[in-house]
Amino acid sequence: MAAGAFRISRRRALSLAGVSAAAGVGAGVAAGRSATDASAVPADAAALKYPFYGEHQAGITTPAQDRLHFAVFDVDDIPRKDLVSLLQDWTIAAARMSQGGSAGEFAPDAGPYEAPPEDTGEAMDLGPTGLTITFGFGPTLFTAADGTDRFGIGARRPRALVDLPRFSGDMLDERISGGDLCIQACADDPQVAVHAIRNLSRIAFGRASLRYSQLGFGRTSSTSTAQVTPRNLFGFKDGTANLKAEDPAAVDEHVWVADSDDQAWMAGGSYLVSRKIRMNIEPWDRTRLSEQERAIGRTKGKGAPLSGGDEFTAPDFSMPGSGGKPIIAEQAHVRLAHPDTNGGARMLRRGYNFVDGNDDLGRLDAGLFFLCFQRDPERSFIPVQTRLAGSDLLNEYTRHVGSAIFAIPGGATEGSYVGARLFES
Amino acid sequence: MAAGAFRISRRRALSLAGVSAAAGVGAGVAAGRSATDASAVPADAAALKYPFYGEHQAGITTPAQDRLHFAVFDVDDIPRKDLVSLLQDWTIAAARMSQGGSAGEFAPDAGPYEAPPEDTGEAMDLGPTGLTITFGFGPTLFTAADGTDRFGIGARRPRALVDLPRFSGDMLDERISGGDLCIQACADDPQVAVHAIRNLSRIAFGRASLRYSQLGFGRTSSTSTAQVTPRNLFGFKDGTANLKAEDPAAVDEHVWVADSDDQAWMAGGSYLVSRKIRMNIEPWDRTRLSEQERAIGRTKGKGAPLSGGDEFTAPDFSMPGSGGKPIIAEQAHVRLAHPDTNGGARMLRRGYNFVDGNDDLGRLDAGLFFLCFQRDPERSFIPVQTRLAGSDLLNEYTRHVGSAIFAIPGGATEGSYVGARLFES
Repeated sequence: MAAGAFRISRRRALSLAGVSAAAGVGAGVAAGRSATDASAVPADAAALKYPFYGEHQAGITTPAQDRLHFAVFDVDDIPRKDLVSLLQDWTIAAARMSQGGSAGEFAPDAGPYEAPPEDTGEAMDLGPTGLTITFGFGPTLFTAADGTDRFGIGARRPRALVDLPRFSGDMLDERISGGDLCIQACADDPQVAVHAIRNLSRIAFGRASLRYSQLGFGRTSSTSTAQVTPRNLFGFKDGTANLKAEDPAAVDEHVWVADSDDQAWMAGGSYLVSRKIRMNIEPWDRTRLSEQERAIGRTKGKGAPLSGGDEFTAPDFSMPGSGGKPIIAEQAHVRLAHPDTNGGARMLRRGYNFVDGNDDLGRLDAGLFFLCFQRDPERSFIPVQTRLAGSDLLNEYTRHVGSAIFAIPGGATEGSYVGARLFES
Repeated sequence: MAAGAFRISRRRALSLAGVSAAAGVGAGVAAGRSATDASAVPADAAALKYPFYGEHQAGITTPAQDRLHFAVFDVDDIPRKDLVSLLQDWTIAAARMSQGGSAGEFAPDAGPYEAPPEDTGEAMDLGPTGLTITFGFGPTLFTAADGTDRFGIGARRPRALVDLPRFSGDMLDERISGGDLCIQACADDPQVAVHAIRNLSRIAFGRASLRYSQLGFGRTSSTSTAQVTPRNLFGFKDGTANLKAEDPAAVDEHVWVADSDDQAWMAGGSYLVSRKIRMNIEPWDRTRLSEQERAIGRTKGKGAPLSGGDEFTAPDFSMPGSGGKPIIAEQAHVRLAHPDTNGGARMLRRGYNFVDGNDDLGRLDAGLFFLCFQRDPERSFIPVQTRLAGSDLLNEYTRHVGSAIFAIPGGATEGSYVGARLFES
């Protein structure tokens, strides 16, 4: 570390530039944005930040931010103590970045220093913009593909961290499935989310290697009643009936692992299932509106169930339609995914739309990067997806190409690190 | 067209939801965003819109928006009249979408219609968010690869629409280079830019096919003095000395094609060069700060030239450094790219940062999607890039993998279409 090293927070950089979070709001009205803004995110949203330390990790019930960079790593051939030090280093950097700071002490500013900067710099002027960084452990961290217990934690693998079954129609690419460790970075500015993953990848060098990563540009679920329901790339509102942070009893029941569940080190944690779902955009776009609405079971405009009402009206699955059939089809997505059809199973969805350019046939490589958090995947995602995979009318327009599951430990306390209870209790 | 068809503008959808552009601003302060917002873009920025019709196409001197979806098409085997009708259809849809409307008359709302919607719906609630859509014609539209003049416009190919030379170090992938037609969609909400490209691709079905496309998440240049200079993925401020809309004499001299230039149909237009520049992120991140600054010729923090001052101080290329060498290295990027080194050559840069996930070796597939507009590439991009390709210190950390050039016709008048003067005058 050079003697002249010091830290400049992104917020301090803003303040040095003469911008205050409060002042930016009024100034931005005329032009639709603040003249001193470095991004589309206004100054007040740029200053938005969430605590990193706490009972639960941030980025789960946090109001879903608009942009995602999700990254999955495989741990290199290193001893247990190096895995622990990686988690310690990640925790410190993530806590700093989530509060608008640089990833490390030695950040760029005027003057030459004879070491690589500990922060890559591209988010220096942008503010935290609601950044959350959420860490998870995949099944292979506990039990490697060859059955070995590399880090002496095999006996502590939670029962709920199952290997996902193969679902009907799965067309999974192993290169974008599975993995030892995951990091979900969400923010309202994509450059802030990308900066977080890039710096955490840099910190991992020699200890863990990037297996795959995914950018998402539009959230597809609300996790707060204060948020408008967004639209997925089928053009429909998505996640209307999602679990919301404002219903803590339901969140406790369906999302957080309780002290009494299986492995005590997972208390306050959750389980994340990720699915990369490619949408067959072009055939969908040539499907008539009535058929699109029949497949979903809701109207496209308002998002109301086909049984009537508005977006938040409960669907009436028994209401008759024409020809003696129910007005919401037996195989409509909204029926098959509904808690009433699944023994009350619920999960907190937090997915993102993606477009990865196009394939060689000129079709948009686009879809939904589905993310859901739950207390027990065997009671939530797995039975629901089994039902959907069997008969959802949407299956004609989708293809599941990536899949993973991760144990998301509870939040860290300051001075400790994410996952400490797995290694130390 | 169904009898019940009608149009719902994205702005009308917002207004129906009880949101007014003005009301959203104050309400958003506490939570850092409006509770009724469907995206990170605040209500006043969501309502931001630019005229589509005019002397010049929008999206060039327009203050650079934060998100990009760039798409390149090859024209199918169709007669000239179908190419003209494609341009007509594209113009109408683009004009509607840029004003916050749907792509076509038959947009989704309650009620089943027995036709595919003419708008895919995912941007219905989002507002125009400054959307601009800019069309261009590649060399192969005038002269196909086999030398044929498919559309009877070969004789009207502008002299300035050259085939770009091969530059030293080019590692171009043909699949993401060239192309007959381009569309640059820029907006402050990525879903709005993606929606525009998707609907224009849909409209092209049977007439033109997507060749490649690129999403960009962070602008890397300011095109207005009201904008803060953003940072590229090297973490440095980029585009400090860019042409700005507020200097119309320079823009007229360096960006817009004049009536007296070569082909009269190009008056009011420009030429776009696109370069996909992959950055070798990991080696760069392990390079010491002094070396990073030497390669760029500016400080990383403030973006000041190494000869002193602040970001906007002119670099002093003759100032001596240590060892009898100039303080700004002979091969520093800022020196080689500077107008003083290039006979006064200037261009309007409008590029975007990109991350396309990662490669098979776990390296981020990231970099700069460079876009620049100029009156004559033989006087701007080509000589500058020839100099950079030869000796820029940054070359160790970059790889040019995609390349294209397009003639950007002047703006359309209402009732006509983009490029009409090429086909009809």
